[in-house]
Amino acid sequence: MMKIGFVGLGNMGAPMARNLLKAGHALQVFDVSASALQTLVEAGAQAAASPKAAATDVEYVMTMLPAAAHVRSVLTGDDGVLAGIARGVTIVDSSTIDPASVKAFAALAQQQGNAFVDAPVSGGTGGAVAGTLTFMVGGSASDYERVKPVLSGMGRNIVHCGDTGTGQVAKICNNLVLGITMAGVAEGMALGEALGIDPQVLAGIMNTSTGRCWSSDTCNPFPGVIGSAPASRGYTGGFGTDLMLKDLGLATDAAKLARQPVFLGALAQQLYQAMSTDGAGKLDFSAVIKLYRREADAA
Amino acid sequence: MMKIGFVGLGNMGAPMARNLLKAGHALQVFDVSASALQTLVEAGAQAAASPKAAATDVEYVMTMLPAAAHVRSVLTGDDGVLAGIARGVTIVDSSTIDPASVKAFAALAQQQGNAFVDAPVSGGTGGAVAGTLTFMVGGSASDYERVKPVLSGMGRNIVHCGDTGTGQVAKICNNLVLGITMAGVAEGMALGEALGIDPQVLAGIMNTSTGRCWSSDTCNPFPGVIGSAPASRGYTGGFGTDLMLKDLGLATDAAKLARQPVFLGALAQQLYQAMSTDGAGKLDFSAVIKLYRREADAA
Amino acid sequence: MMKIGFVGLGNMGAPMARNLLKAGHALQVFDVSASALQTLVEAGAQAAASPKAAATDVEYVMTMLPAAAHVRSVLTGDDGVLAGIARGVTIVDSSTIDPASVKAFAALAQQQGNAFVDAPVSGGTGGAVAGTLTFMVGGSASDYERVKPVLSGMGRNIVHCGDTGTGQVAKICNNLVLGITMAGVAEGMALGEALGIDPQVLAGIMNTSTGRCWSSDTCNPFPGVIGSAPASRGYTGGFGTDLMLKDLGLATDAAKLARQPVFLGALAQQLYQAMSTDGAGKLDFSAVIKLYRREADAA
Amino acid sequence: MMKIGFVGLGNMGAPMARNLLKAGHALQVFDVSASALQTLVEAGAQAAASPKAAATDVEYVMTMLPAAAHVRSVLTGDDGVLAGIARGVTIVDSSTIDPASVKAFAALAQQQGNAFVDAPVSGGTGGAVAGTLTFMVGGSASDYERVKPVLSGMGRNIVHCGDTGTGQVAKICNNLVLGITMAGVAEGMALGEALGIDPQVLAGIMNTSTGRCWSSDTCNPFPGVIGSAPASRGYTGGFGTDLMLKDLGLATDAAKLARQPVFLGALAQQLYQAMSTDGAGKLDFSAVIKLYRREADAA
Repeated sequence: MMKIGFVGLGNMGAPMARNLLKAGHALQVFDVSASALQTLVEAGAQAAASPKAAATDVEYVMTMLPAAAHVRSVLTGDDGVLAGIARGVTIVDSSTIDPASVKAFAALAQQQGNAFVDAPVSGGTGGAVAGTLTFMVGGSASDYERVKPVLSGMGRNIVHCGDTGTGQVAKICNNLVLGITMAGVAEGMALGEALGIDPQVLAGIMNTSTGRCWSSDTCNPFPGVIGSAPASRGYTGGFGTDLMLKDLGLATDAAKLARQPVFLGALAQQLYQAMSTDGAGKLDFSAVIKLYRREADAA
Repeated sequence: MMKIGFVGLGNMGAPMARNLLKAGHALQVFDVSASALQTLVEAGAQAAASPKAAATDVEYVMTMLPAAAHVRSVLTGDDGVLAGIARGVTIVDSSTIDPASVKAFAALAQQQGNAFVDAPVSGGTGGAVAGTLTFMVGGSASDYERVKPVLSGMGRNIVHCGDTGTGQVAKICNNLVLGITMAGVAEGMALGEALGIDPQVLAGIMNTSTGRCWSSDTCNPFPGVIGSAPASRGYTGGFGTDLMLKDLGLATDAAKLARQPVFLGALAQQLYQAMSTDGAGKLDFSAVIKLYRREADAA
Repeated sequence: MMKIGFVGLGNMGAPMARNLLKAGHALQVFDVSASALQTLVEAGAQAAASPKAAATDVEYVMTMLPAAAHVRSVLTGDDGVLAGIARGVTIVDSSTIDPASVKAFAALAQQQGNAFVDAPVSGGTGGAVAGTLTFMVGGSASDYERVKPVLSGMGRNIVHCGDTGTGQVAKICNNLVLGITMAGVAEGMALGEALGIDPQVLAGIMNTSTGRCWSSDTCNPFPGVIGSAPASRGYTGGFGTDLMLKDLGLATDAAKLARQPVFLGALAQQLYQAMSTDGAGKLDFSAVIKLYRREADAA
Repeated sequence: MMKIGFVGLGNMGAPMARNLLKAGHALQVFDVSASALQTLVEAGAQAAASPKAAATDVEYVMTMLPAAAHVRSVLTGDDGVLAGIARGVTIVDSSTIDPASVKAFAALAQQQGNAFVDAPVSGGTGGAVAGTLTFMVGGSASDYERVKPVLSGMGRNIVHCGDTGTGQVAKICNNLVLGITMAGVAEGMALGEALGIDPQVLAGIMNTSTGRCWSSDTCNPFPGVIGSAPASRGYTGGFGTDLMLKDLGLATDAAKLARQPVFLGALAQQLYQAMSTDGAGKLDFSAVIKLYRREADAA
């Protein structure tokens, strides 16, 4: 069992840390929210006064934060992880951030003898609680082997994606495809409704044909088609539109840096932006179908 | 066993007619190509001199034609099906055409006591030869029950989609989603390549995650990722770009009539148009990835 | 002075016919609306019982109709223009329709010794009343010379665009650019507002810089920027969204036939479609800015 | 006459600095390129060893740099402007950068008693040499009055856009509209060509009608239509595609921060990206028409 510093106890980080405790690890935790910190202490973790304190005298450091700016500050601040960590300790960042930042952080860590491994997740808060997340790991083969036992306490699939940064690349590219696919299914379902086919029948055909996809057979955006989908409970409780918007922003930014066109991705980003601007940012991203359905139909 | 008139013996119609012969039906066939006609005669069909002749004294009429204009002419010409058919005989059209034309043809047929059932297919020439097509049937419940035994000689799944025209709606909406999804996967795979992840690894992650779709796990556009996909044999032998372009044209036209926006579908149509304009119309539609991959990478 | 048959007395056709009367021509008029007919009779025209009757014993025939289907019916019906017209009489169609239909109609007219000239207009109902329309004429040089004196009674600029159909091509291409430009200006003005610049200042800079265009300096979509623009009177009284939608439909259809990509035009069409679907089809097309402005800002 | 520190002597900065010398000002100049520095020294400027040195003991500081990262480094580096400048001296930045960075830089400058004014330009290298640039100035009314005499030595129009950052907003919004408009005109001209109208005739109609815009009447993308346009000299010497791509990137980034959709802008960005990826980044941005014209037509 390991001694692990854990920074970032939000909706995702808190249940992940809890699962590490359940797996028998000792945790030094830090978060800017005192109540988030307190909850983990009650679960058996030791509170730290700063990222630096959390990273002091541990074998691993995990971070789970909203954006690259937070990771930078947690790493490089005066009270940051890099100020507290011992030489040779590995930092695993499960935040979803841009690959270029990952490389910059890895270079900083490398300078003082630490590996920095990107390991963003899929599976959402449900997977975080259940310990069934997928981790997409970027780093050397030995980094991967070293972090795998720790990550196995929080997830089911620990996939090695390649060198530093490729964990983020995998996540960003998957979610680019997801954002496009969901909006595409929304277009197809709404068009079918307008043309008079039963949505259940249409989904049934797509799901056994070439239109088959997760956005249709598991998370279909049309209410009632898939009972367990967010669409069937008022678009609550899934993957929020603003999170999809963040990931499409990462994808189009990465594409810009790589000088790579992303026609549909850029347009899908605008569609989710229009939703968010209209106040639907907290709804599951499958609510994008509201852009297509007439209000009378959708009522 | 039935006596069936069959009009349209192209890449799809010929093997479909052949399977009806194998199933024991008697066929009166017509095509504008004498050689196409001759081949079916050698397989046991009786040649007819016109659509009218093919439709005379039969229990069913099947048509399989390139576009609505051909169906109109085959039905309503002086030597057309409606001039030869007996009252009460059902016409089954497996062409992919717009739902509005289907309704117009059904009204014409109705006037002289014939049912007109739309039954477009998916499964391609492979499915036509193997007799494993999916038929999407639009018509009344009794129409469906009546045509099912005939269609079963040519396909595996005979799906009732609803009233007249909904067979076409199902096909068009599925292919709208397909056209968007494939271009979306192409964007994601090409972006991943540009950002340095192994395409095989990226596809593996998508196929077990939320980006999962037929366009990724069965027909992935990146060469070598799926051995049996057209991408792995030079984009030959699948679903041609010009056919996808035709179906997206039907989808955006139907959307226009229904006053329904299709943002991504309209953009995807332009992407396949750009491919086709550049001379790639005969390649499998997954070749859309060539719009995204740098020539040096793709070489 | 000429004897002219005139078919189609709607918002555009009625004032155009009135101006021909003012110019001293004798008119035989037809419309499906008895009241429209009556109004022209009171202005001095002679009522005809059918397009055929209107076209009988005249030197020119003018048509001004909503769409190609109406032109086809008015020309080729049993009581149509082609049934009544004498050999050698020229038909001038000022409807906005697709170039392919123009060519088909011209071929039909040619078979019985009549020239068919396309002459769509710009300038709207205001220009029709004031007699200041622009006519875009497609036809031979001699056709152009022959129709010019008649058209001069209704418009200020009579432009020869080239062979049959190019009048429509000019109109369609101009309005394709217009539809894109207006939505582009709407995006720029709404972004500027969101970023805190005074809309008047922003428009002033664009109008003296490279963003300068009719959609900015004459018909700016931001309320109050141009006092005489529809935006400054609740988006009433200009060029209706549904008319722009019709013209973008003609443009993307023509592009499809010509196998020509129109990326921005196809997307702009969807934006106006979304407006129209939401019930804004009768507003001036500059109301497209409502898709971009937050409700609180726009209130 | 003033003593001015000037940092950034590239294609734009060098002629701007030269014009300040001609106007009688004394200049302390800095650039990372020794040869660029030497050229200005020969024109009468005094070389400085660093931005700090250039900013020491002057009445104004001008900066003209490629991107926000350069401005940040020139301002805040150990040898930067803020380390050398006296209290009360105004910094005028004519770089094109994002409004958020402007506000951050202004806050830094403010802390040590300096005003930071954004004053991006339009007019290109031609306008920089001729001294006919337009300056879009963001800052207080008194800032504007203070910098106007200096900027008048380099430009013809010195426009006050509003508070700090609005100079950039004006430039970004204008160029967003410009990027869309040019691609729109390219679509319209290429479609017209494919449909058989003479490009000169089509442009003539657009330029006297509602399609009128700078991208059509001054910089038409079709070769030969406007003799003085880059299109008529092989797309050389205008506003480079990569610069348009940079500005559209600033626009879509600013829109993302402001939570504002930019449908056409995001798509236009991808079109210029596709051009640039294909190696056309140095051509005038009107070369976007190459995406639409068939090679045989364009040859």
